[in-house]
Amino acid sequence: MSNFTDLVKKLEGLDTSKMYQNDFLLTWEKSDAEIAATFAVADALRDLRERNVSSKVFDSGLGISLFRDNSTRTRFSFASACNMLGLEVQDLDEGKSQIAHGETVRETANMISFMGDVIGIRDDMYIGKGNAYMREVAQAVQEGYDEGNLEQRPTLVNLQCDIDHPTQSMADMDHIIHQFGGVENLKGKKIAMTWAYSPSYGKPLSVPQGIIGLMSRFGMDVVLAHPEGYEVMPEVEAVAAKNAAATGGSFKKTNSMAEAFEGADIVYPKSWAPFAAMETRTDLYGKGDMDGINKLEKELLAQNANHKDWECTEKLMKTTNAGKALYMHCLPADITGVSCKEGEVEASVFDRYRVPMYKEAGFKPYIIAAMMFLAKMKDPAAALKALEARGQKRIFTY
Amino acid sequence: MSNFTDLVKKLEGLDTSKMYQNDFLLTWEKSDAEIAATFAVADALRDLRERNVSSKVFDSGLGISLFRDNSTRTRFSFASACNMLGLEVQDLDEGKSQIAHGETVRETANMISFMGDVIGIRDDMYIGKGNAYMREVAQAVQEGYDEGNLEQRPTLVNLQCDIDHPTQSMADMDHIIHQFGGVENLKGKKIAMTWAYSPSYGKPLSVPQGIIGLMSRFGMDVVLAHPEGYEVMPEVEAVAAKNAAATGGSFKKTNSMAEAFEGADIVYPKSWAPFAAMETRTDLYGKGDMDGINKLEKELLAQNANHKDWECTEKLMKTTNAGKALYMHCLPADITGVSCKEGEVEASVFDRYRVPMYKEAGFKPYIIAAMMFLAKMKDPAAALKALEARGQKRIFTY
Amino acid sequence: MSNFTDLVKKLEGLDTSKMYQNDFLLTWEKSDAEIAATFAVADALRDLRERNVSSKVFDSGLGISLFRDNSTRTRFSFASACNMLGLEVQDLDEGKSQIAHGETVRETANMISFMGDVIGIRDDMYIGKGNAYMREVAQAVQEGYDEGNLEQRPTLVNLQCDIDHPTQSMADMDHIIHQFGGVENLKGKKIAMTWAYSPSYGKPLSVPQGIIGLMSRFGMDVVLAHPEGYEVMPEVEAVAAKNAAATGGSFKKTNSMAEAFEGADIVYPKSWAPFAAMETRTDLYGKGDMDGINKLEKELLAQNANHKDWECTEKLMKTTNAGKALYMHCLPADITGVSCKEGEVEASVFDRYRVPMYKEAGFKPYIIAAMMFLAKMKDPAAALKALEARGQKRIFTY
Repeated sequence: MSNFTDLVKKLEGLDTSKMYQNDFLLTWEKSDAEIAATFAVADALRDLRERNVSSKVFDSGLGISLFRDNSTRTRFSFASACNMLGLEVQDLDEGKSQIAHGETVRETANMISFMGDVIGIRDDMYIGKGNAYMREVAQAVQEGYDEGNLEQRPTLVNLQCDIDHPTQSMADMDHIIHQFGGVENLKGKKIAMTWAYSPSYGKPLSVPQGIIGLMSRFGMDVVLAHPEGYEVMPEVEAVAAKNAAATGGSFKKTNSMAEAFEGADIVYPKSWAPFAAMETRTDLYGKGDMDGINKLEKELLAQNANHKDWECTEKLMKTTNAGKALYMHCLPADITGVSCKEGEVEASVFDRYRVPMYKEAGFKPYIIAAMMFLAKMKDPAAALKALEARGQKRIFTY
Repeated sequence: MSNFTDLVKKLEGLDTSKMYQNDFLLTWEKSDAEIAATFAVADALRDLRERNVSSKVFDSGLGISLFRDNSTRTRFSFASACNMLGLEVQDLDEGKSQIAHGETVRETANMISFMGDVIGIRDDMYIGKGNAYMREVAQAVQEGYDEGNLEQRPTLVNLQCDIDHPTQSMADMDHIIHQFGGVENLKGKKIAMTWAYSPSYGKPLSVPQGIIGLMSRFGMDVVLAHPEGYEVMPEVEAVAAKNAAATGGSFKKTNSMAEAFEGADIVYPKSWAPFAAMETRTDLYGKGDMDGINKLEKELLAQNANHKDWECTEKLMKTTNAGKALYMHCLPADITGVSCKEGEVEASVFDRYRVPMYKEAGFKPYIIAAMMFLAKMKDPAAALKALEARGQKRIFTY
Repeated sequence: MSNFTDLVKKLEGLDTSKMYQNDFLLTWEKSDAEIAATFAVADALRDLRERNVSSKVFDSGLGISLFRDNSTRTRFSFASACNMLGLEVQDLDEGKSQIAHGETVRETANMISFMGDVIGIRDDMYIGKGNAYMREVAQAVQEGYDEGNLEQRPTLVNLQCDIDHPTQSMADMDHIIHQFGGVENLKGKKIAMTWAYSPSYGKPLSVPQGIIGLMSRFGMDVVLAHPEGYEVMPEVEAVAAKNAAATGGSFKKTNSMAEAFEGADIVYPKSWAPFAAMETRTDLYGKGDMDGINKLEKELLAQNANHKDWECTEKLMKTTNAGKALYMHCLPADITGVSCKEGEVEASVFDRYRVPMYKEAGFKPYIIAAMMFLAKMKDPAAALKALEARGQKRIFTY
């Protein structure tokens, strides 16, 4: 699967024409061929790098990052992906900018994009806002390009929004594919996306939503487990159900962590906030009701505390398939006795899966780079072959 | 005009020898040939980029940015220009630095410049300070170069000071040239640089000053309009008058917005603070008199509020030449009913000119790059031809 | 000495095999050959640059900076070094990151290093912490590489810790070598590393420690002078004594600035905090005892004030060898009557040595680049020759 020639051949059979000059906002807007192509390109770029072959397809150009929330790994993954393809990162730090002084999204989007080949946005804090904002930016740069203001049409990459976290779920999926020796081996496998207790509140829903929205496409049995009251967005559940039906898999919901873990091949226990509470919070912020927000925060923490038994323990892990399910996490995790008193996962479980989890995270730069590559190269298979033939070394050899 | 060969030929006829290894601080320090060369190089770099030909003249090197005021578009324009020529941007963020701990300008200038090919400075807040600071830095790096501390002499680009905003006025002028089909079509055209009401206070004078200092060089009839008390620096008015006399144009002042708009071909309505008030503010800051500053701010806002009728309305626009004057703004604008209750311009006027204004802004990266290019390439025409011949692609082709 | 061919020939005779894929944390962990190789590569890279030959050995890749203290010159030196070799700087700004949210050093080190070729760390605030932190990061990335999480093993460069400041001391030494016409001319020369009065408190000990730990290796007579109570770490004094014994030089301590300056060939007067006080401060911070910290600060400032006579005056300079000792400082200095009322050095002394001090600082980017180069190029002499042969221009020629 990691053979460059095979990856390119596979890519040649996939229709990626609609990815060209397009954005990557939600995985379920992409066809199966497009999803498969993203994995193929990610793996091919990795293979080139491991052979010290440069994948710079830009001699110059900017990758603009717009983070509305703190981030380490996604920021570095985006920077790595840009660097790998030859783009220089320029952060739009809203603190340093004049955006607050009355600029519209449309104007800002145009003003930063004169040399912008890619815009990566992370905006995951408010339900109903993040993805909508990305679409506003996408429309603005499309218009800017159509009107001739912009010499190129920058590609948007969703680095996490209120609905989906496609660079995470795609990296996670690429990790699963490699762990299981190929996508063809996933039919009938059980994956449990489950809520887990955390002493912090308000964690985004984009990870569980991204996971059920994507993992339901490969014939797996996807189980979403959470305590009552921790529902995710119904639209995304509908996506998962539809996907499962189409691929011969299944999508089930349960309020029992034990049921979800029972016989699972993959477990993904992670905290998130209830969708309804996040909607309320968004409204409260809209009204500037800080008292209401503080009250809500206390309620949510109290609500969380009712579910401290939702922890990924060794005991639960034993109930998975042969006791050896692949444990996954987007990191950082709340580890019981390590990063908090009581958390999402027992320390011994976490430690045992540390190496695979770091590998899981390591797919993200390549996934982001693949999304950009497919948006910028009209014939990605030919481009990859030409890069290999060019043979430019990443590190000087002599 | 956008033909590469013609641009290079034009450039060959212009003496740019004094631009080599020199700074760009005030447009009126540059000869007509140097101004014309800057437009020619900007257009040629754009033409190369539009044909996917790389204009990287640096394989490595730093473009140092020093912003003493928040900025989106100038920051991105500078970053874009550096990237286009192959320089990596390194921000001198005074918050992150030790400058406050007793370093002199001379020392800092040397310490940051060991690999610095360009330094871009924005320092527009205090009358009598910004441009003076730039000259201090320029002298320091010149000495550092002469003494052998610096391997190269970094070029300074004024990204806005208290006196001029040359990257803005030059981008604006390049826009006008393109809109009117050539600089030769501007003789006798009327351009109105007029004050406009804004609910904020203390906007820099560098834009109106930059505009009258530059636009008066092309045989146009330049009118500066503002309410009494909103005078700009007398030295710059003198520059405008002298320029106009030398090129067969005119420079006039009026306290009537209507008079300025009457028959105008170009209008540039924009708020600014009174020069005298800015001088007072600088003194108050010098003394650390915060009460005085707050009092001044209130007075200035009250003074502004007396002139809410200075708004660019559809009615006023109808009085311009054929009712079709080119509306310009450096952005962001205070749009009535959009970004503020009452502002510089009616929303319908602003909207109608949105596309040309975005194009106007789009010239800035190329203008900045041209200023750098002319400071670094001894024979810029030959360098451009060699870049075209080199044919290095900006985006990989295969 | 600056002849490229000679430098490469010299390098060929030095064993640098252990520097390959290794870190640069303390100068006294490096062999004499490795120290000599670092100077040779630094000078060779400078020579290439002065001849407009690119030394980019990376086509892409990241140089990650992690500064836990403000910095101008070291930050720019690191950025310059990265740029010179082709790496793009990516700052790990802990304020912007999620590190506070329960991530371990091990996890963060892996998460930022997927495309990281170099990590530069400055962590000099707490005794017993900075260097230990660097070793924790080094171990983490080594494990990450061994486990296959990281495609390459990033090299760590110590940009200043609690024990040593190797990029400073090595740049200082390269300056001395150039000033004295070669390392072979240093035998028997006297260098005085002396404390000097400053109105600020808590300056790091890494500079005096770095200087005595390195300068004692070249047969010089190294004198460490400070008032009683301003002792440095005993372990580093032991290193200096051992080095001196091995190279036929000497290492002496005195509580008299006059004695140290007497007949000195090089003087390095600079303020620092007492080691014992810094240990106490670290403990107080550990306990969160802010009252204790404030009290300690007052005590330290009072203690400093007892030693205002520790100033580098013209009178003292006259007592040095022929009155012409080389004055050195890592900058910024506390200059009497300039940056403070009473400080480390008289203004006229400082001014006289300004140019050599700026040259001194100018070695740092090349020293850092050399450290990286030696960690990344298995045969550095061959690599340098190949770079010269490649002949890629840093600035476009036509």
